[in-house]
Amino acid sequence: MTRLVSDRYGKAGIRLVQVTRGPGAHEVTDLTVDVLLTGDFAAAYLEGDNRDVLPTDTLRGTVYAFAGDGPVGEPEMFGLRLARHFLSASPAAGTAEVALVGDPWVRLGPHGFRRDGGWRRTARAVAGRDGEAVFGGVRDLVLLKTAGSAFSGFPRDAYTTLEETEDRLMATAVEAEWRYGPGADHGACARELPAVLASAFDAHDSRSVQHTMAAMAAAALDARGELDEIRMVLPNRHHLPVDLTPYGREDRGEVFVATDRPYGHIEGTFRR
Amino acid sequence: MTRLVSDRYGKAGIRLVQVTRGPGAHEVTDLTVDVLLTGDFAAAYLEGDNRDVLPTDTLRGTVYAFAGDGPVGEPEMFGLRLARHFLSASPAAGTAEVALVGDPWVRLGPHGFRRDGGWRRTARAVAGRDGEAVFGGVRDLVLLKTAGSAFSGFPRDAYTTLEETEDRLMATAVEAEWRYGPGADHGACARELPAVLASAFDAHDSRSVQHTMAAMAAAALDARGELDEIRMVLPNRHHLPVDLTPYGREDRGEVFVATDRPYGHIEGTFRR
Amino acid sequence: MTRLVSDRYGKAGIRLVQVTRGPGAHEVTDLTVDVLLTGDFAAAYLEGDNRDVLPTDTLRGTVYAFAGDGPVGEPEMFGLRLARHFLSASPAAGTAEVALVGDPWVRLGPHGFRRDGGWRRTARAVAGRDGEAVFGGVRDLVLLKTAGSAFSGFPRDAYTTLEETEDRLMATAVEAEWRYGPGADHGACARELPAVLASAFDAHDSRSVQHTMAAMAAAALDARGELDEIRMVLPNRHHLPVDLTPYGREDRGEVFVATDRPYGHIEGTFRR
Amino acid sequence: MTRLVSDRYGKAGIRLVQVTRGPGAHEVTDLTVDVLLTGDFAAAYLEGDNRDVLPTDTLRGTVYAFAGDGPVGEPEMFGLRLARHFLSASPAAGTAEVALVGDPWVRLGPHGFRRDGGWRRTARAVAGRDGEAVFGGVRDLVLLKTAGSAFSGFPRDAYTTLEETEDRLMATAVEAEWRYGPGADHGACARELPAVLASAFDAHDSRSVQHTMAAMAAAALDARGELDEIRMVLPNRHHLPVDLTPYGREDRGEVFVATDRPYGHIEGTFRR
Repeated sequence: MTRLVSDRYGKAGIRLVQVTRGPGAHEVTDLTVDVLLTGDFAAAYLEGDNRDVLPTDTLRGTVYAFAGDGPVGEPEMFGLRLARHFLSASPAAGTAEVALVGDPWVRLGPHGFRRDGGWRRTARAVAGRDGEAVFGGVRDLVLLKTAGSAFSGFPRDAYTTLEETEDRLMATAVEAEWRYGPGADHGACARELPAVLASAFDAHDSRSVQHTMAAMAAAALDARGELDEIRMVLPNRHHLPVDLTPYGREDRGEVFVATDRPYGHIEGTFRR
Repeated sequence: MTRLVSDRYGKAGIRLVQVTRGPGAHEVTDLTVDVLLTGDFAAAYLEGDNRDVLPTDTLRGTVYAFAGDGPVGEPEMFGLRLARHFLSASPAAGTAEVALVGDPWVRLGPHGFRRDGGWRRTARAVAGRDGEAVFGGVRDLVLLKTAGSAFSGFPRDAYTTLEETEDRLMATAVEAEWRYGPGADHGACARELPAVLASAFDAHDSRSVQHTMAAMAAAALDARGELDEIRMVLPNRHHLPVDLTPYGREDRGEVFVATDRPYGHIEGTFRR
Repeated sequence: MTRLVSDRYGKAGIRLVQVTRGPGAHEVTDLTVDVLLTGDFAAAYLEGDNRDVLPTDTLRGTVYAFAGDGPVGEPEMFGLRLARHFLSASPAAGTAEVALVGDPWVRLGPHGFRRDGGWRRTARAVAGRDGEAVFGGVRDLVLLKTAGSAFSGFPRDAYTTLEETEDRLMATAVEAEWRYGPGADHGACARELPAVLASAFDAHDSRSVQHTMAAMAAAALDARGELDEIRMVLPNRHHLPVDLTPYGREDRGEVFVATDRPYGHIEGTFRR
Repeated sequence: MTRLVSDRYGKAGIRLVQVTRGPGAHEVTDLTVDVLLTGDFAAAYLEGDNRDVLPTDTLRGTVYAFAGDGPVGEPEMFGLRLARHFLSASPAAGTAEVALVGDPWVRLGPHGFRRDGGWRRTARAVAGRDGEAVFGGVRDLVLLKTAGSAFSGFPRDAYTTLEETEDRLMATAVEAEWRYGPGADHGACARELPAVLASAFDAHDSRSVQHTMAAMAAAALDARGELDEIRMVLPNRHHLPVDLTPYGREDRGEVFVATDRPYGHIEGTFRR
């Protein structure tokens, strides 16, 4: 006999573009939505009994139907409205989670837009039988600093060949997610925090990626009192100096090769 | 004051190809390795004090050095040797996790190989101060069945437009990870289980993806008594019938469009 | 005044899965189809006059409608039937080109299949007012050899630091396209040539990727007299030996790092 | 006997990041460089004779060495300097082509930068025994318009089900490459033309993607007299209206699903 220990199901990659046609200009909202339900669905897995399984196609349709009610607004609250609905629509579900990734568009004219690839906004809402949680975030915010980054004072063992450095390039692609406290202004946080994180990265006198991450987290928690917590993942995208001396060039530390793999993976969760 | 609530760091995407040069023929092992350490690294984050931070470059070097000791063997044990070493080399670490993805190569001749894209093998070892766990798995095993797949008997609400069906295409890309019990034969499990999972998928009279997942999990747990648990993720890659009647063709249910997004996401964890 | 010097339009990424439901077993054909029309469409570009522009949605629909007529058969002839049709359906077109990529599926049972990721089959048909051409091919055939590969005797200049070697790893992902002569057996060529190319790669005593490419091309032209010409692209996927001496390991030339970028790009077109 | 009909080789994906350390602030240049040589390399292919084959590793090293001589400047001229050098360094080459893709970075502070994902700049230089050509361009410039886009007046056949529309969404990712005439200001063109193309897209009363492409090309040729020619590729990224009536919602034409595949492919080359 097989037992189901835990389970989860839903629909991923629901692409929603909403155009709000105002008198003078249009607005565009561009979201990719994932819906996930957790709960007691053992009968479906073990007996093929689907009576509790709201179809994933229904999850998809609900997202579009809710968008049909009018402007979706901030993705956090759109996600929360959906999560609450799914919890109600699926009695077998213990929690409903809606995760959204927003592609930002920059206005060219009243009806024209250019996609801004500087970063993508994220939001996530979790509704459970015992409570709710709402998250905002940013992804694909790529940063580089050419001064103010060191890495030294680390332990050495038989496999350590890395030299200590007081001056290296540091590059990363920020992934950050913060949990909102009550009364949070989601839109203001989402608009302000990418720049706050980038400025903290820029200004920091860094001893390591970890060290800079904590400074970025502190800046975010300082800037917006509504944040209860912030979690960050920073890949260390290594830029290696190219040795030019074999080519008869003096080495002035200006030429680097940007590498894809391997990369450092640094993550941390911070509170006040 | 910022507090560090949790943290993790390591190196991802370490590409290792090992050639074992036997007298008659060569063997090839092709792994991509991620190393992650969890523990008390707060001084690095909050004070920029790196004295406990074994560099991620050292994690990388250690993987290559261990491969220099001879054939790495099954990835599970190579991962466990590395995880144990990292736990010892990093006193501040509470756990060391090594995750490996293996690309399979098929022999063409004594020194020639073709990559088999049918699936990728995975392994994972976690060493902690209180114990260890070892996992095997498979990824990117893409399956399709053209009969024996239904989806009906599900609940309907105001957003449900999906019709019930007793005969649909079902396609997925299997991601499975099993936890080994003591004394497990890792190589035998890794070689046998992809075919076991595929056969169970093929043979099952499916009421849903969830239903088939449980049958696949049961087959794996039956086939190898060493498995304590198996976790699976099965995307439902929808194949939609194309309506040919506007083109004056009779509809015989033979022409489908394979869609990328959205897709169903189904996951479950199973034990005996 | 702007002039249109050349133009082309069509539909890309048409995903077609055809199930042929035989009495004992089903067959699956999985194709991704691109259609491109070249011709005199200047009125559309310069004047916004669409009277000659068969919609790309019609190109898509035609692909599905033709599949509705019964088993598509070998992709080369399915492509040619489509290309001929489009040339007839679009009087303004000078040529119609249909390119197809086929994903192979391996049978598990009468109605169950596993995708074989060893390589993808390609086909291309071009119909013009003055004649036709039909091509077959293979893509994503990944090969590696651990002996029999040298690179030496090359010229050296002030920027050459590469050492000569008589023994290196050689890896590539084969992309080959052959043009069929009249009366060719497309299916036989497509089934036989991937193995012919792989065997030639394996058996060759290589002085360079270029050298091995020519041997592979010769083997293909030898194996199938129907081929008029073969064009190949072979990326040189570099595998660099890892220096283990800093870690106190003897260097036995068995540990390599597989790199993604940069890579060598080698291409050539061959005839008898 | 196998004959070599045509050939080409080189190095692709050379990642170059250059930091220019001025007294007050740093500058960053981020390029990915491909080098391709065409010529008479038959001896390498057919006889394994490498005496004319400048190693691709040398091509890589030369790119870094040239960057070691000081700021690379505009990518067009850096590419042309390299192409001329390679033509000289490789007597067997008939042409040397250097293609560059630049990732733009936005300044955060004197030593800090954020990557701007709005588009990528491209450049290409071809040096041959008989002359030279230099190209600039833009890639990944994603545009959307929610009004001013129609598609009607097209021919209909038995496979045409598309309805005529006077009001649809139009979205694309611009790929444009222009050939410079003599005396061109490469930097000014590269900085000005993405906005010129985006504005023309925005302002145009579109009858089709082809129609808008011609307007964009005309605007570019008008804005910069140095351009001899411009070639554009515009995928038509379809946004399909979602029918909300099954969910009891009035259909106001505001909710769309953005699709990935299939997509229209439109290309054209324009001169004055």
